[in-house]
Parts: sequence; structure tokens; C-alpha cells
Amino acid sequence: MTDAPLSLRERKKRATKAALSEAALRLAADHGVEHVTVEAISHAVGVSPRTFFNYFDSRDDAFTMIDAEIAQRVRDAVEAAPPALSALDAVIEALADELAHVGARQDVWALRAEVLNRAPHLLARSLGAHMADELAMAAAIARRLGPPPDGAGEDGEGPGLYPHLLAAVAGTAVRVAIEHWSRHTGDEPIPAVFRRVCAHLAAGLPDPPTGA
Amino acid sequence: MTDAPLSLRERKKRATKAALSEAALRLAADHGVEHVTVEAISHAVGVSPRTFFNYFDSRDDAFTMIDAEIAQRVRDAVEAAPPALSALDAVIEALADELAHVGARQDVWALRAEVLNRAPHLLARSLGAHMADELAMAAAIARRLGPPPDGAGEDGEGPGLYPHLLAAVAGTAVRVAIEHWSRHTGDEPIPAVFRRVCAHLAAGLPDPPTGA
Repeated sequence: MTDAPLSLRERKKRATKAALSEAALRLAADHGVEHVTVEAISHAVGVSPRTFFNYFDSRDDAFTMIDAEIAQRVRDAVEAAPPALSALDAVIEALADELAHVGARQDVWALRAEVLNRAPHLLARSLGAHMADELAMAAAIARRLGPPPDGAGEDGEGPGLYPHLLAAVAGTAVRVAIEHWSRHTGDEPIPAVFRRVCAHLAAGLPDPPTGA
Repeated sequence: MTDAPLSLRERKKRATKAALSEAALRLAADHGVEHVTVEAISHAVGVSPRTFFNYFDSRDDAFTMIDAEIAQRVRDAVEAAPPALSALDAVIEALADELAHVGARQDVWALRAEVLNRAPHLLARSLGAHMADELAMAAAIARRLGPPPDGAGEDGEGPGLYPHLLAAVAGTAVRVAIEHWSRHTGDEPIPAVFRRVCAHLAAGLPDPPTGA
């Protein structure tokens, strides 16, 4: 995510990639994942299979890698956020910006959940991608925070406890916000639900005054 | 979890169930999940297949349902915790008590991760069980908090935002603590790592002073 508006070229690339994912999911919902081919997905979007492979390494990536680019943009935004922001606030702002776009594609996300739930190997693949994104996010947060003053991290391998926790909790916050919003769609835009979730987190999760 | 010590009968039941899960995982690691039968699992533990089915509804449950009872005990403890505790503290205390037992079985948990990663249908099944546990935990938290003062929850369906968030974040806190502890085993008991995670959460996730 950058402050500059997206170039036309970048917009077109994102639109093509999104269309390929959506076509893959619709074909899978209609015919079953095992009957979906790269040729059929490409044909549905009006591009060649060669073009498909410019966007995805495999058929299965079209089902599962919708959010890999989003994760990369969020990481870049976290590292580029003003130094005055806490790491938590940097993560919240980056995610809220991306979530503004998710609302417009609720049907695709619902379709994806349906397809993944019926295809365990895709669910496992998606979970693996999510875990890789989480570690990459933890690394971005650790870079933003800088090394501890004594010159040595607490960890020989893997991210420190706080960066790992913040990355994981941010993912959980997004999931809870999306699930809540899916049940109450129309009431409140998704970034607003997400900011309510984050207000609970930033306050240290005290009992809510209303019990709800 | 209760304050009273476990009865001998309850201890024996837990030990048998744990032995069945462990035998299932060791057989799967050695021979592949698809070659593991209920007969072989039962034989390894010295019980009958009939006894196996007193503990698990299916072979696959022996791989994935290790934590279903733990989740039930945690929910019971959350609801039974002293009213003076916040919901967050009630959840933390309940989980820290259970995590004290997890440390002794690190090899089994590592084996389980290995088996699930090689068998997507088991990973999907485990994820489904985890999501069901999360919803049940959210419901227990909502009961503990009581209905909001105006007599109506904010939600027609599903748990309210705060109970759902606290249940999900608690699961994330456990996962992060276990992953961190697995990388640094021996340095610090797992409940201590978990309490450090929870201290970050209760403080509202401010930037850590050390950057780590």
C-alpha cells in the first residue's frame, strides 16, 4: 500500500488476478474443485493459460493465494508507517485500509470459505500460506521496532515473542471482524467493526461495560 | 478443571485416552495415517476396540480430538471462576492451569503437528474442532459476563463481538506461547511464557521497551 494512487497498470493487474481467483472459485462451487482446470479458469476470464501462470504458480494457488498480495502490502505499510505510531497502531492502520476493499467482495470470500471447507487439501494449503504470512508480518514488526537496546534479541531463531504475538493477534482481529461483519452485513462497514475490535485490544481487553 | 484433586477413576480415564491418542500418532508417524486401524491403536495400548470407542467416535478423532476435553475443562473453569475476576483474567487462569500439563507432553504435540501436516483431511478436521471450541468458549464468556444492561445483546446470532474476540485471542495466545516455547524449550516453563504473552495483551499491546 502506498499513499500514491495505483497506476493503471497495477489496477489492471489486480483486476485480472481477482477475476481469475473469482472464476476459479465459481467453477469449483459449480463443478467441484477436482474438475476445474487452468484452461477453464482462463477461458472464463478471457485470457490464455499462459497469462494465468503470470499470476499464479498453480491451479490451487488461484483458490488459496487471494490474500498473499494483501499481506505483502500490509507488511510494507507497517514498515513505512510514521515512526510516531506504535507498532500496534501501524498494524491497525495498514489493515483497516485493506479491509475497506474486502467489503466489496463479500460474495467472493463467502464462496472461498465454501470451496475450502469442501477441499481439505486447499484448506491446509491456505492455512500454510496464512502461517507464512504471519511469520513475515512478525519479521516486519520486529524490523519496525528495531533491535532491543542490549544489542541481542531474546530469540536465536524465529521472531521475538512480542512481534510474533502482535502479528498473530492482528490476524485474529481481522478474522473476528470479518466473521462478525458477515453475520451482520449491512449494519456497519467492515473497517468500523475492525476498529471496534482493535479498541478492545488497545484497551487491554477489559470487561465491556455492556457485557456484549 | 476443579479445585478438588482428580479422582482415581478420572485419572485413569484421562491416561487411557491420552495413551490411545499417542499410540495413534506414533503409528501414523511410522506407517502413514491411512494404514492405521482402530485395532492396531487399541492393541498398542492393550485395550479392546470396544474400549477405544468409549473414548473416540472414530479413528480420526484419536488424531485430532486430544484437546476437546481440555477445551471443556477450560470453559467450565471460566464460568466457575470468582466473580471478582475480569473475563480476561478468568480465561488466563483457566488456560495457565491446563498449560502446566501440556509441557510434559511436548513430544506428543510435536508428533501431532507432524502427522496433521501430512494429512490435510485431519488438519481440516482439527481446524473445524478448534473453531467449534472457540464458539463454545465465546458462549461461556458471554454467560459469565451476563446479558448487557439494556436487556438485548447486540447480536441476533452468534456470540457478541467481545466474547468472540476474547475467545479467539485466548486461542491465539496459547498458540503463540506454545510455538515460542517449542523453539526455546528448557528456558522457561510454558505457563510462564503464556503469562508473558497475556501481560502484553492485558497492557493493550504497547511497544515493548526492549523491542523484543
